[in-house]
Amino acid sequence: MPPRDLVPLLAPRGVVVVGASGNPEKLGYAMASSLKTFPGDVRLVNSRPTAGMHSSIAEAAAAGGVPDLAIMCVPATHTASAVRESAEAGIGAALVCAGGFAEAGGVGVDYARDLDTVVAETGIRLLGPNTSGFFVPDAALFASFVPGVRRLGAGSVAVVAASGGINHVLSFRLESDGAGVSLGVGIGAGQDVSAPDVLQYLIDHEPTRAVILHVETVPDGRALMTAVAELAVVKPVVALVVGRNDVSEFARSHTGALATSWRTTRAALRQAGAVLVGDEAQAVAAATALSARRARASARPGVALITAQAGPGLLIADALGDANHLPALGRDTQGALADLLPPLTFQANPVDTGRPSETFPAVVRTVAADPVTDVLGVYAITEPVVDIVTDVLAADISDGIPVVIGVDGPASEVSDIRRSGRESGVPVLSGPNQLAHGLAALTDDARARAVRPEAAISSPVVPPWVASVADEGWDEARGKDLLDALGVPTPPRYRCADRDEARRAWRELDAPLAVKLLDASVLHKTEVGGVVLGVRTTDDLERALDVLEAAGASEFLVESMAGPGVDLVVGARNDDVFGPIVAVGVGGIATEVLGDVAIRTAPLAHTVAVAMTEDLVARELLLGHRGGAAVDLDVLADIVVRLGALVADGVVDEIEINPLRSTPSGIVALDAIVLPAHKEVRTS
Amino acid sequence: MPPRDLVPLLAPRGVVVVGASGNPEKLGYAMASSLKTFPGDVRLVNSRPTAGMHSSIAEAAAAGGVPDLAIMCVPATHTASAVRESAEAGIGAALVCAGGFAEAGGVGVDYARDLDTVVAETGIRLLGPNTSGFFVPDAALFASFVPGVRRLGAGSVAVVAASGGINHVLSFRLESDGAGVSLGVGIGAGQDVSAPDVLQYLIDHEPTRAVILHVETVPDGRALMTAVAELAVVKPVVALVVGRNDVSEFARSHTGALATSWRTTRAALRQAGAVLVGDEAQAVAAATALSARRARASARPGVALITAQAGPGLLIADALGDANHLPALGRDTQGALADLLPPLTFQANPVDTGRPSETFPAVVRTVAADPVTDVLGVYAITEPVVDIVTDVLAADISDGIPVVIGVDGPASEVSDIRRSGRESGVPVLSGPNQLAHGLAALTDDARARAVRPEAAISSPVVPPWVASVADEGWDEARGKDLLDALGVPTPPRYRCADRDEARRAWRELDAPLAVKLLDASVLHKTEVGGVVLGVRTTDDLERALDVLEAAGASEFLVESMAGPGVDLVVGARNDDVFGPIVAVGVGGIATEVLGDVAIRTAPLAHTVAVAMTEDLVARELLLGHRGGAAVDLDVLADIVVRLGALVADGVVDEIEINPLRSTPSGIVALDAIVLPAHKEVRTS
Repeated sequence: MPPRDLVPLLAPRGVVVVGASGNPEKLGYAMASSLKTFPGDVRLVNSRPTAGMHSSIAEAAAAGGVPDLAIMCVPATHTASAVRESAEAGIGAALVCAGGFAEAGGVGVDYARDLDTVVAETGIRLLGPNTSGFFVPDAALFASFVPGVRRLGAGSVAVVAASGGINHVLSFRLESDGAGVSLGVGIGAGQDVSAPDVLQYLIDHEPTRAVILHVETVPDGRALMTAVAELAVVKPVVALVVGRNDVSEFARSHTGALATSWRTTRAALRQAGAVLVGDEAQAVAAATALSARRARASARPGVALITAQAGPGLLIADALGDANHLPALGRDTQGALADLLPPLTFQANPVDTGRPSETFPAVVRTVAADPVTDVLGVYAITEPVVDIVTDVLAADISDGIPVVIGVDGPASEVSDIRRSGRESGVPVLSGPNQLAHGLAALTDDARARAVRPEAAISSPVVPPWVASVADEGWDEARGKDLLDALGVPTPPRYRCADRDEARRAWRELDAPLAVKLLDASVLHKTEVGGVVLGVRTTDDLERALDVLEAAGASEFLVESMAGPGVDLVVGARNDDVFGPIVAVGVGGIATEVLGDVAIRTAPLAHTVAVAMTEDLVARELLLGHRGGAAVDLDVLADIVVRLGALVADGVVDEIEINPLRSTPSGIVALDAIVLPAHKEVRTS
Repeated sequence: MPPRDLVPLLAPRGVVVVGASGNPEKLGYAMASSLKTFPGDVRLVNSRPTAGMHSSIAEAAAAGGVPDLAIMCVPATHTASAVRESAEAGIGAALVCAGGFAEAGGVGVDYARDLDTVVAETGIRLLGPNTSGFFVPDAALFASFVPGVRRLGAGSVAVVAASGGINHVLSFRLESDGAGVSLGVGIGAGQDVSAPDVLQYLIDHEPTRAVILHVETVPDGRALMTAVAELAVVKPVVALVVGRNDVSEFARSHTGALATSWRTTRAALRQAGAVLVGDEAQAVAAATALSARRARASARPGVALITAQAGPGLLIADALGDANHLPALGRDTQGALADLLPPLTFQANPVDTGRPSETFPAVVRTVAADPVTDVLGVYAITEPVVDIVTDVLAADISDGIPVVIGVDGPASEVSDIRRSGRESGVPVLSGPNQLAHGLAALTDDARARAVRPEAAISSPVVPPWVASVADEGWDEARGKDLLDALGVPTPPRYRCADRDEARRAWRELDAPLAVKLLDASVLHKTEVGGVVLGVRTTDDLERALDVLEAAGASEFLVESMAGPGVDLVVGARNDDVFGPIVAVGVGGIATEVLGDVAIRTAPLAHTVAVAMTEDLVARELLLGHRGGAAVDLDVLADIVVRLGALVADGVVDEIEINPLRSTPSGIVALDAIVLPAHKEVRTS
């Protein structure tokens, strides 16, 4: 069931416009104009009323059944009192479009606090402030001051945008280029109604078949993930996250908040089941493709492509790339196609039909029926004699595979085909790359649902001594003891209180040895000369101890060096927005310079941890690059799960293994940095 | 002057359609229909003529002035003879749309050869085969069998596409979303008229203000580069290259050729002055933005952005990224803006105006006048009361900075604004990301023109002994001697014919030493155990020599090891398509796994080599990452230039330094692999 208390806001029976105006320059005029199509009751309030207006909210509410929604077109100074008046008149929800609240600073912060107070005291639901509003085209309800919104027809994609402007950008684009809008909301400052609230409401919102979520900043990461995860079970969610580049100064002026980490936010939304996109056009293509039918869950879904022109087909195949592969169609399929198509065309996949003939529906049916086909794209340049939507419908593949049509041609012809597709429930996109984005959204969604929903693993067995370490500090030796307790392999080693103990360790351990300074207050030992590698002889050892003592060492860690291998970085920490998270990357520049890191929230399931490496651009290195040994992904995932559980359980605040080396004889942790719970210092 | 012999093809006075037909299913019918708008003479030929047709090409040619262009709508079997007949009748050019030539294999190869013979013997210019044709909307000439082409209005962007389908995709999109089409050509098989030919023709083609080049395969890399470079001096060229992913099997079926390396082709086109784009929508946005005015040349052009809505402004700023930065506007500008705008908006850049008011033209003028502004973007959601094109024109900034407008709103309003922009020469794009792509194209073009056009450096001084090495083979010691001769620093070292010489070398050189097997036939010494590092003691040395002898060494290279630093990979080789090329990357996974390599053709100028590192994703490492020493880019560029000249001069076929280490005390080559001229073996 949706949270019932958003119904007064998003599905009101009656509306009152507070601050309605006869002056076309005023917000209250634009809002009342937008509401003219609304079949429900619309009452207008102005303290100096003209004909047909009420002089107060109370009077308007008393003029018949109490309206559900009050739309505030008054300045920030008057907003809180008007909202209180509305609540007292029995109105269940308010929309506040004005700016000048928290984002403006100064006295605006007071206005925002006043609004919070009214919401807390009255229970009224409040959308805004600082939003251009919302609309439900299916209900002919346009509560937005942007004049063009009334041209939006009923569609099947809901937009939940951080910004009112982006709500409009996406909605206009869904109308012209996609599956149309079922509900469009700009969250604005989100003082009460938040993106998670609206996502929850959409679970049972019948006209909505797919959702676009636009994210600028995330007040509560876990609430957002939960809402996305619950919605994504029943309806696909497409996420557009702002902040790839540093736009924080401008963003702060807009939202009054620091931008959330783009990488972490994207990873968390993906983990919750969202399909990620990079721009507004991709968002519309993805949501449109997903709005008709989802592909069956699959770890490696296959795309089949039927194209009437080879050049665009090549662009589509290129844009799909390896992640959305085009598997060769089966021998039977190719045999059947050979009977349906002229001999010179390519028929393995893509299927290059040449100009579509009367066999086109049979070609579509044949390709859709191949077991390798999880998703089907059909592309053609428009021709008056070819009705591609009818051809696809004639193929009668309604029982299974999702199909997306791509067309290019004169704008009016493309527009006619879109309309025909929208009416018959077949997604139509324009442009080879937009078709590729649509198909990729279907395969992304199929992959996300293929990760088995196992329970997250928490509560690692932690030895009792861990609790007492905080006071002494987590030096590397204690960090590695903790890893031992978690079952993470570490090198044979001795903690040595003096040179004599170090000499004894040298005799016990296999050379070459690493000899390190032990000091919990030194996070980066290498930078202070606190690490000597390749110690083989007693001379080497004495020299090493000299160096470490010069660097300030009073205790030493003496350990056997691991053989060569692939160095990984694995860690867990508490993110300000998303709480406990784990990260995996390849050591060196891939992680440090290129930011090639896979992130998930913790605690997490083993299957989720195994899938992390698929995110890495450098994953090839983990699979046995240039004849090297492959990394044991099961063991790696175990380690990630355990570190995540450790931080999620609050045992430590942060733990990083850098490097975690994968050698032919197994994985071993070569360093360990641990920050105790509640310690403020960060390692980076 | 353009090559005069493309005038009969692309600007014919009269046209003859060979194989014209009254049957709407036939190519000859579609072509004759498309030509109905052409004001010049159109004659129709069919061997079984109906009313108004001629029975032969000779007869048609004799029926008045000889037509310039014959359009072949006959099967591949009859094409060569019809083209010969046309040439003999005095017709200067032919368009062949049919497929079934070389790409089809078998007898098609013979048909293609017959066409080549006719072209060679008669001098007729031939476009095709296997193309849907070309069009010149300004001349109302549509020589394409795609019915919708007649809806293309005259515009200012030329399309030169490898594929006829892509020519149409881009042209329809330029008409609906951009600056319209001045000339659209699909090269098809390109047996005679090639992309370079058409690019050269466009230099003086008056209606063309910008060009989109679509590349699938490149028959002659240097000819393409030359044509792009000559055209880019006078008109911006936007390049869309297919083949990021492996689509070679399908591509071969389409073009009959192996795909050119995507990375090398992109680098070469960029070097020639083209602006690179990733998909068809970006191509249209880029060419549209570039079609009105180019930005002044600048190594780091600044973008100023004026936006009426903060949310879309944030998306635009994010999409622009670091490469197309938004510099803070000057104090004077911000002061002037404070007088023009409400107090709460962000005014540093982006300039967030809120809903555009009557001060909008003054805001545009003020921002455009700031010296940090090289390119200006103006974004707004459409409103009936705001005429953004008129506002921008009213700002009267016609004397300098290029401006691009971005709008979103109801499709009909966006379309009206586009039309108004197109009529008044102001580029209009829709969507925050499309605006960002348009602005980025302007800055890319400005950066490309900022590289000083110095002469390429060739003819390195090569010692005479090099010529004699080929017979003995290029082992590492000889490779390093060659580097010494080129002035590339190498470590102190000795070539040692036996263990005694190695022991003498050990005494002469500073430890630690590297001891390596010397054998020109072993390209990857490490993989056969042919390299021992860290040799300090005589014991170490003896053990190392044992290992190398076990690996088959009869000669040794003994050298001092360099200190730690950043490892680069630098090389030069002969590319099959582009001839001599140089490559620079960061050693290890950035180059090997992530393909992060900068490429240029050789010989090259020092300035061009210096700019190469800007291409690298990992360039941060070269600038002094984490307190490390910065790489001396001047020295690096010198080395690249010399290696390039060496291969360009044919002294060697390939040379690779991997690693080239940049240490705090300088750059030094730690290995050298050389392949003599004309040797077939490749190192990879």
